[in-house]
Amino acid sequence: MWMPDRNNKKTLYEQIADHLEQRISYGEFPPGSLLPSERRLAEQLGVNRSTVISAFAELRSMGIIESRSGSGTRVSTSKWGATPKHTPNWSRYAEGGSFLPNLPFMRRIREALAQYPSLIDFASGELSADLAPTQEISSLMSKHEYTSYLGYDNPQGSIPLREALVDYLQQHRGIRTTESSILITSGSQQSLYLITQCLLSPGDAVAIEDPSYCYSLPMFQSAGLRLFRLPVDQDGVMPEDVRALYKKHRIKMVFLNPNFQNPTGTVLSSERRKRLLDIASELGLPIVEDDPFSLTSYEAAPPLPLKAMDNVGSVLYMGSFSKIAASGLRVGWMVAPHSIVERLADARQQMDFGLSIIPQQIAGQFLQSPLLLPHLDNLRMQLQFKRDLLMESLEKELSGLVEFVAPEGGLHLWCKLIPNIPEGKLLEESIKHGTVFVPGSVYGSDPGYVRFTFARAKLEQIAPGIAGFAKALRALMV
Amino acid sequence: MWMPDRNNKKTLYEQIADHLEQRISYGEFPPGSLLPSERRLAEQLGVNRSTVISAFAELRSMGIIESRSGSGTRVSTSKWGATPKHTPNWSRYAEGGSFLPNLPFMRRIREALAQYPSLIDFASGELSADLAPTQEISSLMSKHEYTSYLGYDNPQGSIPLREALVDYLQQHRGIRTTESSILITSGSQQSLYLITQCLLSPGDAVAIEDPSYCYSLPMFQSAGLRLFRLPVDQDGVMPEDVRALYKKHRIKMVFLNPNFQNPTGTVLSSERRKRLLDIASELGLPIVEDDPFSLTSYEAAPPLPLKAMDNVGSVLYMGSFSKIAASGLRVGWMVAPHSIVERLADARQQMDFGLSIIPQQIAGQFLQSPLLLPHLDNLRMQLQFKRDLLMESLEKELSGLVEFVAPEGGLHLWCKLIPNIPEGKLLEESIKHGTVFVPGSVYGSDPGYVRFTFARAKLEQIAPGIAGFAKALRALMV
Repeated sequence: MWMPDRNNKKTLYEQIADHLEQRISYGEFPPGSLLPSERRLAEQLGVNRSTVISAFAELRSMGIIESRSGSGTRVSTSKWGATPKHTPNWSRYAEGGSFLPNLPFMRRIREALAQYPSLIDFASGELSADLAPTQEISSLMSKHEYTSYLGYDNPQGSIPLREALVDYLQQHRGIRTTESSILITSGSQQSLYLITQCLLSPGDAVAIEDPSYCYSLPMFQSAGLRLFRLPVDQDGVMPEDVRALYKKHRIKMVFLNPNFQNPTGTVLSSERRKRLLDIASELGLPIVEDDPFSLTSYEAAPPLPLKAMDNVGSVLYMGSFSKIAASGLRVGWMVAPHSIVERLADARQQMDFGLSIIPQQIAGQFLQSPLLLPHLDNLRMQLQFKRDLLMESLEKELSGLVEFVAPEGGLHLWCKLIPNIPEGKLLEESIKHGTVFVPGSVYGSDPGYVRFTFARAKLEQIAPGIAGFAKALRALMV
Repeated sequence: MWMPDRNNKKTLYEQIADHLEQRISYGEFPPGSLLPSERRLAEQLGVNRSTVISAFAELRSMGIIESRSGSGTRVSTSKWGATPKHTPNWSRYAEGGSFLPNLPFMRRIREALAQYPSLIDFASGELSADLAPTQEISSLMSKHEYTSYLGYDNPQGSIPLREALVDYLQQHRGIRTTESSILITSGSQQSLYLITQCLLSPGDAVAIEDPSYCYSLPMFQSAGLRLFRLPVDQDGVMPEDVRALYKKHRIKMVFLNPNFQNPTGTVLSSERRKRLLDIASELGLPIVEDDPFSLTSYEAAPPLPLKAMDNVGSVLYMGSFSKIAASGLRVGWMVAPHSIVERLADARQQMDFGLSIIPQQIAGQFLQSPLLLPHLDNLRMQLQFKRDLLMESLEKELSGLVEFVAPEGGLHLWCKLIPNIPEGKLLEESIKHGTVFVPGSVYGSDPGYVRFTFARAKLEQIAPGIAGFAKALRALMV
């Protein structure tokens, strides 16, 4: 990333003007397009806003940009002179398209994290660097001879990785399957995307948990699906609600995250799993079981997955490495009937021609390596430690103002706020105090909830992060 | 992949029956679902069809499967007995979804290549193993310390890779750009997918070359686009055709592959490039420039890309490693205005949460490595060698029956067949003779054309492959 050089003879504003002129001349900002605001540029470049204002003035005097009050600063179109030339109306193209943009809160969080690297991150649903098996992966990579053919991958994914997963799924999740029933994806995100694009049609009704990670995914709306809610209590969703939604709305599919649910952390009880499967088989209704967190249980392992108890073939099972090893590997999997695996593999080929085989080889080796079990043991211990620290900090800083149930696995704590504070204000105030989290409405919940991810922050950041959040909350309570 | 064991005490048909019973019990083939045909299973498992027939008979006698003449063999549903249980109607789900399946010819080719590993492959548009820089990549990997954080990637892709691409694009393609204008994708396939999903709406008209690789992509139909043709002659498309299509159909975007076009191998002339850009800027019309082959030129480099001459910001530029290094890396790029890069990066996050950083690191290192230029020199020489051998073989085997223009770069030769043979028959007959190619209609052309990819086959396979094709053609001429 380009940054102005404080040791340069040129002034900061001249450097910035030159830099912007270059980006404009290269076509990053074509004629007529909007430049980032002075405030945002100042934040990105680590300078005062007045410096950016001087740089803009310089570019304006050269006729390169134009500002109109209230509509921002744009690249001049007048420089074409007598011959009219037209840049495509890129902003209209960017607003078009059937695929919807991300939720504003999610974009704001991403932007804030990019702008302020020192923010304490309770928002990103991933592991911190010290929890990822970076050393293990590095050593597997350096030992391995990459002599195999680096051509396009098998449409279902690397065969050695699928074979390793057959053993892994049986040993760790009690799922008996074959390599030909497995589709390797880049993670649960892609698995869900393929399901919504290829197995459902616009107008189809589906049931999702309330609250649910799925609400944070505009992909469900982009696919034109009608979403119906299955409220979650301390034992997960109520099976009879599925039957009621089927009768009323003819739902075509049920999306569940039964273990340490995102965001609530709840575990679907064994008894409800059985009843859910009975109801699904009674109705011929498919269940999508997203199971990213089950190996992060701190004490007791969660019940067997629905897939392991499914003798009718109702369940599409999804898992990934993202929450138990490294999200940067981008390796996940689905276990599904043959016809579904073939359909999704074919569609994925068309969307991206499959995954790189290098991370798949590494993932397959890691699954079979003696390094896996010690890594998982350590991961569980460290996550529990972080969870405990988060809960202590919340009790210390916000006693009486928050309510939560301790999650027994996973990466997230779902927290009810007693004071009634608008979410957007709380998020902005919290960012000012150095902490970022995800507002509960992102998961479709009623107002007044927050999701804290305790896996991503460093251990020593948890207490100061919650202290910052508490300051923000209290500042808005007056 | 499971294969029967000829040294096992059990007979082959018993082993196959056990194996299928297991796959059925694990849910790969749920109750009511269709099993692969006897013929296909026999091919996959390398046994006589009579062996599969015996295995099916065994399973039928156990009540596990049911066959009805004309509708294939299905897994029994009757075993549920008195309590009715229902498997989701997976085949209906697999047929649903807004995303269309691949073209039948493409699926047939993929299936044939999977079934008969000895087929000589003139169909897959990629490099053979000996042309990929496997040694170079292996050595970069083993030397590199993967100590960096394996978290989710930057939404636009790895910053060091984008910085390396800024130098690469300037040096090799005369494109001046900045890392903030670059989006890393998994290849041109994903770049095109993002454009069709995010910048265009159902019903929009777009122009594509005729013939064109784009016709082979049902993603254009899946996005609901109306496709209009720009005929290609020896100098590429006619610029005035773009204006005519704009007037008549208000096309919203033009997709071009100006260098060694897939499938025809033609190069868009310099003069037409300039006129195209003039017309695009007159109409405010975006051009998508797909440039995967330009570094494979055997003699003279092709003209500068449109992007390098574009001073209005009309061009979205796409490139990738797939055709110049290794498709298995899954690393490509787009250069685009800022607003477009942000929009596509946001959508890609939602679809698959970005790429693995490992192949991106390797690709960035390879771009900056002294190994790159010798690799490219060797690649060009070897490709030219393979092209020459293909042309010699065609002239020797099919003199007077085929016509073609020698491509001066790229991986493909576009070949007109003089005899009038139905494409499907020719493909099947050719597979029987050990050779596979892509029928021209896949690229939207008139009947009577074939695309031969000469990069994928081994050097010593080219002559026998064309001999097999010639036998198939002659067999159908009688």
